[in-house]
Amino acid sequence: MGRIKDDTLECGYHGLTFDCAGRCVWAPGTGRIPSNARVHAYPVHEKYGLVWIWMGNPALAEASEIFDIPNFDNSAWGRNQGAAMELDCNYLLMCDNLLDPTHVAWVHQGSFGQAATRDTPLRISKTDNGVIVHRWMMDVEPAPFYKKVIEFQGNCDRLQHYEVRYPSHALIRAIFTPAGTGGPDAPLHKDAFVMDSYNFMTPTTAGKTRYYWFQLRNIRPDDTALSAMMSEDVRHAFEEDRAVLDAVQIGMAEKESPHIDLPIDGGQLRFRRQLEAMIAEEAMVDEKMQG
Amino acid sequence: MGRIKDDTLECGYHGLTFDCAGRCVWAPGTGRIPSNARVHAYPVHEKYGLVWIWMGNPALAEASEIFDIPNFDNSAWGRNQGAAMELDCNYLLMCDNLLDPTHVAWVHQGSFGQAATRDTPLRISKTDNGVIVHRWMMDVEPAPFYKKVIEFQGNCDRLQHYEVRYPSHALIRAIFTPAGTGGPDAPLHKDAFVMDSYNFMTPTTAGKTRYYWFQLRNIRPDDTALSAMMSEDVRHAFEEDRAVLDAVQIGMAEKESPHIDLPIDGGQLRFRRQLEAMIAEEAMVDEKMQG
Amino acid sequence: MGRIKDDTLECGYHGLTFDCAGRCVWAPGTGRIPSNARVHAYPVHEKYGLVWIWMGNPALAEASEIFDIPNFDNSAWGRNQGAAMELDCNYLLMCDNLLDPTHVAWVHQGSFGQAATRDTPLRISKTDNGVIVHRWMMDVEPAPFYKKVIEFQGNCDRLQHYEVRYPSHALIRAIFTPAGTGGPDAPLHKDAFVMDSYNFMTPTTAGKTRYYWFQLRNIRPDDTALSAMMSEDVRHAFEEDRAVLDAVQIGMAEKESPHIDLPIDGGQLRFRRQLEAMIAEEAMVDEKMQG
Repeated sequence: MGRIKDDTLECGYHGLTFDCAGRCVWAPGTGRIPSNARVHAYPVHEKYGLVWIWMGNPALAEASEIFDIPNFDNSAWGRNQGAAMELDCNYLLMCDNLLDPTHVAWVHQGSFGQAATRDTPLRISKTDNGVIVHRWMMDVEPAPFYKKVIEFQGNCDRLQHYEVRYPSHALIRAIFTPAGTGGPDAPLHKDAFVMDSYNFMTPTTAGKTRYYWFQLRNIRPDDTALSAMMSEDVRHAFEEDRAVLDAVQIGMAEKESPHIDLPIDGGQLRFRRQLEAMIAEEAMVDEKMQG
Repeated sequence: MGRIKDDTLECGYHGLTFDCAGRCVWAPGTGRIPSNARVHAYPVHEKYGLVWIWMGNPALAEASEIFDIPNFDNSAWGRNQGAAMELDCNYLLMCDNLLDPTHVAWVHQGSFGQAATRDTPLRISKTDNGVIVHRWMMDVEPAPFYKKVIEFQGNCDRLQHYEVRYPSHALIRAIFTPAGTGGPDAPLHKDAFVMDSYNFMTPTTAGKTRYYWFQLRNIRPDDTALSAMMSEDVRHAFEEDRAVLDAVQIGMAEKESPHIDLPIDGGQLRFRRQLEAMIAEEAMVDEKMQG
Repeated sequence: MGRIKDDTLECGYHGLTFDCAGRCVWAPGTGRIPSNARVHAYPVHEKYGLVWIWMGNPALAEASEIFDIPNFDNSAWGRNQGAAMELDCNYLLMCDNLLDPTHVAWVHQGSFGQAATRDTPLRISKTDNGVIVHRWMMDVEPAPFYKKVIEFQGNCDRLQHYEVRYPSHALIRAIFTPAGTGGPDAPLHKDAFVMDSYNFMTPTTAGKTRYYWFQLRNIRPDDTALSAMMSEDVRHAFEEDRAVLDAVQIGMAEKESPHIDLPIDGGQLRFRRQLEAMIAEEAMVDEKMQG
C-alpha cells in the first residue's frame, strides 16, 4: 500500500519515504526523520522473469547461487507459463510432491500418468544442492499430455527426472524418445522430446505458498498456440495437485491416523532432513555473527 | 479424495488401496504393505435411499434397529424431498426444533403456523426410543401450506405429532381432518390428509449438521407437480429454521443473557437428558469390553 | 431476528415479547413470565435521520448532548449522503483518520489532496468536547473534488478543519474562498464554498465499525444531480480510507516494526488520551453508583 518513486518507496497513508537500504529519507510534519523509522531491506535480484529475494544474512547474498536454467534464453526452445498459484499448504508439501514421480499415476491420470508410473522403481540420489528422484520407463505408450506434442510415432522410452534444490525450487525434466533409444547411458536421440518444468515454491506463511512455474521445451519455440495449450494443460494438472495438497495440509494438521512413510518417500525424507540441517546451521552462523 | 474400485477404496494421491474391513491390500513402491496402514471401517447399511452408518462398537451394529418408515414403499403414498442441507449448528439444536410444535407460530407464519399453534397446550411423552410432543387443535382454519393440498372444505381438526428418536432422527406427523372428526381417540377419517415428515440429523462436526429430509403424504402419489411444489415449500420453511438455528448456535456460544427454560421446552429437556445417559452408558460398555 | 409489534419486540423463534423497558410481557406455554426473562433496554433518540443510542448509565442519558448540526434543516444548504459502510477496523482508527488533514495528500490524490496538503503546518486545539486539527492553505489551486463545485475562478484560500468529538463523531469543515479573502480572522466571503462533512463511527465489535456519513454544502440545495455526484465522489474517497484502515488494523495487530508517533499525530494522541480518561471516569462513577 504505497508508491514507488524513483528509487524510493512512499507510504500510501502519510508519505514516509524509504530508500533501497530501508532508511527513512522523508517524513511529514516538521520534516525531521524519526530515529526508529526504518524498514527491513532485503537483497533482491531479477532473473528469469522473477524477483529473487534473499531473506538471510545480507552479507551472504550471492546472485550467482540462483537456480540455473540453461535454456531460458535459448531461441531453439519454447516456453509456456501461467499465473502464480496460491496454495493453502506449507511449501514443503509441494517439495514432497515434486520429488514424487509416482503420484502422477493417481493424481494426473488424464495428463502425466500412465500404467508404468504406478510401479517402475525409483532411483534416489543426493546432489550438492538437492535431491533427485528419477526413473526410466522403457518401451511404453506416451502419457496423454505428451502424446499430443511428441513428434514421433509408436512407443517411447520415458524419463521422469524429479529434482528439488534447497531451499525449495524444482526442475522436473521429462524425456520422451523413440522406444529403444532411451535409458540412463544413451545419448539424446534427435527425435527426443524434452520438457524442463521449473517450479518455485515461495512460503508466504506457515500454511500458504505462492507457486511460480514455467516450462521449457525443445520443440516449436515460436508456436504460441502450442504454448497456450501446454500452459492450460499444465495449469489444470497443477490444480489437481493443489486439491490434494490443500487436503494433505488439513489432514496432517488434524491427524487421525498414524504417520506412514512408504518406500517411495525416500527422496522427500532425505531432502527434508538436509534442509532442516541447513536451516539449523544458518541459525547457528547468524547467532555467532551477532554474538 | 480417491476412487472406489470394485470393493476397495484407492487413495487419490498414491494409490494405497483398502478393502471393506479397512485393511490395506496394495501400496506403491516395493509392494510391501506397511503394517500400520489401515483405515477405520464402519458398518453401513443402505435403506430408504440413505446410507446408515454405525459409528459405535461394530459388534453391536444391528440393521433392524434402523428407524422404521412404514409407508416408504406404499404405492398409495406420494413422496417429496430435496437436497440435504448443511446447517451451521450442533445437531441437537435441530432436535430441539423438531420437538417444538410451537415454533411454527413464529418461524413459519407463511406455511405451517396459525393462531392455534401459539398457545394450544402440548402433551409430552417418552417412548422406548425417543420423545413425542403432540397436540390436537380442534375446529381451526388450516395453515397456509396445508390449505393448498387438503381436499375437503371448511375448518379442520389438526394434529401436530413431533417425535424425535435417539440419537437424532425425527418423524413429524401432520393430520388435517374435517372439523369434528379428529382428536386423540377418533379413527382416521376417509378425507383426512396425513403427511409424515422424516428428518435425519447427521452431526459432521460439533458445530455443523448435515440435514436429510423427505415427506410422505397419503394423497396423489403420482402427482409430480404436487411433489415439486411441496418440496419447494418445505425447503423454504427449512431455510427459515436454518436462519434461526444458525443464530441460536452463535447466541449460545457467546451467551450474554441467562439461560431460560420455558414450559414448552419439556420435550427437549427429556430428550437431551436421556440421550446423554445413553451416550455415557455406551462409553462405559465400550470401556468394559476393552478392559 | 424478530418483529416489532406496536411498542414491543417479539422473538422470531418462540414469541417471547419485550416492552420498551426490556421487560418480558408475554411468553409461550403456560403464559407465566419467567422471572429472569428480560433484555437490556437502552435509551435511544432519533435525530438527524439517525438513531442515537446511549449505552452508559441510563440515568445519565441526555438528548441535548447529541452532536449539534447547525444547518441540517437549513433550506439554503444542500445535503448528500450514502449508505453506511462497514469497516474492518477499530473505531479509533477512523477517529485518527478524521483528525489527520495530512493523509489526503497520499490517500485522496484524485479528490481532496493537493501539494499544499503535504506540508502546511497543522494547528491543534482541545475543546470541551473534542479535538480540532486545522490549517489554512493560502493562495493555492483547489483540489480536484472541490474544483468541480466551487463557483469562482482562480486560486483559493483553503481551510481544513478536522474536528472529532467524544466519543467518536466528526465534523470535517472545508472552506474554499477566493485567494486573499480567507484566513483565520477573515469574515466568510460571499463566494466562499463551505462543506461540512459529518461522520459517525459506531463500534460494533473491537475490530469492526459501522460508519455513517453525510455532507452539508452552502450551495445549490436542490440540485439532486450535484448531490448524487458528490455522494459518489465522497463514497469513492471513503473506500480509499477503508482500504488503508483495514490494512492498518491488520498491521497493528501483527506489528513487526516499532511504533512511531509523528508530529502530525498530535491531535490523535490528545483525543485518545482524553477519551481513555473519560471511559475510566465513567467506569468509576458506575461502580460508585452500584456500590
